[in-house]
Amino acid sequence: MKIVILGAGGMGSRFGLMLKKAGKDVTLLDGWDKNIEAIREHGIRANYNGEEVQVDIDIYPIDDFDPDLKADLLIVFTKAMQLEDAIQATRSIVTDQTKVLCLMNGIGYDDILRKYFDDEQIVLGNTMWTAGLEGPGRPKLFGNGYVNLLNLGKSEEAAAAAKDIVALLDEAGLNGVYEKEIFYLIYKKVCVNATMNGLCTILECNMADLGDAQASHDLINQLVKEVVDVANAEGVEMDLDEMIEHVGECFNRETIGGHFPSMYQDLITNKRLTEIDYINGAVAQKGKKLNVPTPYNQFLTSLVHTKEQLLGAK
Amino acid sequence: MKIVILGAGGMGSRFGLMLKKAGKDVTLLDGWDKNIEAIREHGIRANYNGEEVQVDIDIYPIDDFDPDLKADLLIVFTKAMQLEDAIQATRSIVTDQTKVLCLMNGIGYDDILRKYFDDEQIVLGNTMWTAGLEGPGRPKLFGNGYVNLLNLGKSEEAAAAAKDIVALLDEAGLNGVYEKEIFYLIYKKVCVNATMNGLCTILECNMADLGDAQASHDLINQLVKEVVDVANAEGVEMDLDEMIEHVGECFNRETIGGHFPSMYQDLITNKRLTEIDYINGAVAQKGKKLNVPTPYNQFLTSLVHTKEQLLGAK
Repeated sequence: MKIVILGAGGMGSRFGLMLKKAGKDVTLLDGWDKNIEAIREHGIRANYNGEEVQVDIDIYPIDDFDPDLKADLLIVFTKAMQLEDAIQATRSIVTDQTKVLCLMNGIGYDDILRKYFDDEQIVLGNTMWTAGLEGPGRPKLFGNGYVNLLNLGKSEEAAAAAKDIVALLDEAGLNGVYEKEIFYLIYKKVCVNATMNGLCTILECNMADLGDAQASHDLINQLVKEVVDVANAEGVEMDLDEMIEHVGECFNRETIGGHFPSMYQDLITNKRLTEIDYINGAVAQKGKKLNVPTPYNQFLTSLVHTKEQLLGAK
Repeated sequence: MKIVILGAGGMGSRFGLMLKKAGKDVTLLDGWDKNIEAIREHGIRANYNGEEVQVDIDIYPIDDFDPDLKADLLIVFTKAMQLEDAIQATRSIVTDQTKVLCLMNGIGYDDILRKYFDDEQIVLGNTMWTAGLEGPGRPKLFGNGYVNLLNLGKSEEAAAAAKDIVALLDEAGLNGVYEKEIFYLIYKKVCVNATMNGLCTILECNMADLGDAQASHDLINQLVKEVVDVANAEGVEMDLDEMIEHVGECFNRETIGGHFPSMYQDLITNKRLTEIDYINGAVAQKGKKLNVPTPYNQFLTSLVHTKEQLLGAK
């Protein structure tokens, strides 16, 4: 089975490394020259739970790979705003038989994928693995995680293929879970991302400090309420109190509270554009379509974009 | 005519200095010990349009002044959140004959003043003078300005008294204007304060940079829209496009665009609590009462409070 991973950032490198270590046939496609050079020269060199791990793996530029390359499984792990361009640049590797797995943070990717692929090909999910990048070819991979996924296609073949992907992930220690309520889980994660990411980025604080600032709770509760309202309007049943409690787990200093969310790292640390349009912006967009008011998510989206512009993010 | 100024910060010091220089009988009451000490020792020493100016002036602690002190005119220039306590602490200086002039930034002060004084006593307005404080007893007073004001009382006596105050301010070079549409002008200023103050504080930028960041315009337009909606619901006729254009004047780098609003100075520079509850918070409060949605003003209020808590503001 030929696996192609589109995007070799932190998460793409994690999946690439773990699948390759499990003996799978993996090729990476990436858009960052220095990353490609480093991986070609040294392989992926990961800080893997504190140990140095090295794995050789094929990698090509997204616009310069073997024209005969075909994927049985395409895993997309680009930056949100690069997904559509990346799919267009790599259409030749997708056949009718290819499955496309998307585990990216946020919502609205199914709409993009459906423009290019049949529902029967698409497998959607999310992942509780984390990953960072210390430099080109150098992911930092700590902790444990798992992958929830579900086929969008209704056929038995689509379900069977998704379960094959679960088995594949399990072989690589990536802990796949076939999950009927995938949209519930995606929205559950959006509740966390729609609050912690934008607020910690705007206020330049970690999650525990945000939680300690009592005035933040009004913001968090309203943001979560809008996500839940949008989900419910989409037919995904969510409970507000349960989601607020779930988000509150981020404040725990003993576990993850000291963490600065990835959006903070993108914008504040690295002056890079954020994925806000695929988190709060996507909630606001869906809200507009479904006639659900989402002013808090809209406000936070515009505020983060303003900060991107003030900081000259690229 | 005995003039008492409650609050000897930048603006109270400006009015005190200019009235005293014009030969008026002025007493200051203040709550900041070091400020009182400095003014007792050296008078007010102002950087006045680049020149050093010194004026001796009586000043007492807000809770320790001559019990026989009575004011013909009480001018209130406290921090917004200190106004009610300050009025309570100084009730003995107000008689039935005393007029109370409030020119403070924001809205909702009339509701506070009406708890303690008769409408016939209250004169409400705003001022386009600016003032800063470089240290105890050291205001920095640049540029030109004027004062708009109107009596809340309906009687001819109330109008006559307000016009006397206009004349008094004119004698001191403070440029008084008797202004029928005072609530329009107050809301017009709130449009500026409700956008520039909170956003420049949260984003830590000056007004010109805020204006250059195109994504801020959605935020600004929505915030102004809510202010205009609230004003209109209160019977104060405001035009949205006109107000958005008015706010846009703040972006001009040739004039005031390089300025960091007072809220920025309070919170970011001095780690002091802000007046957000009397600007965006008051808009949201009035919106609630009048059934006008004000989520953007509510969001910004909570966000600034969160930042106050994160920075340990006092």
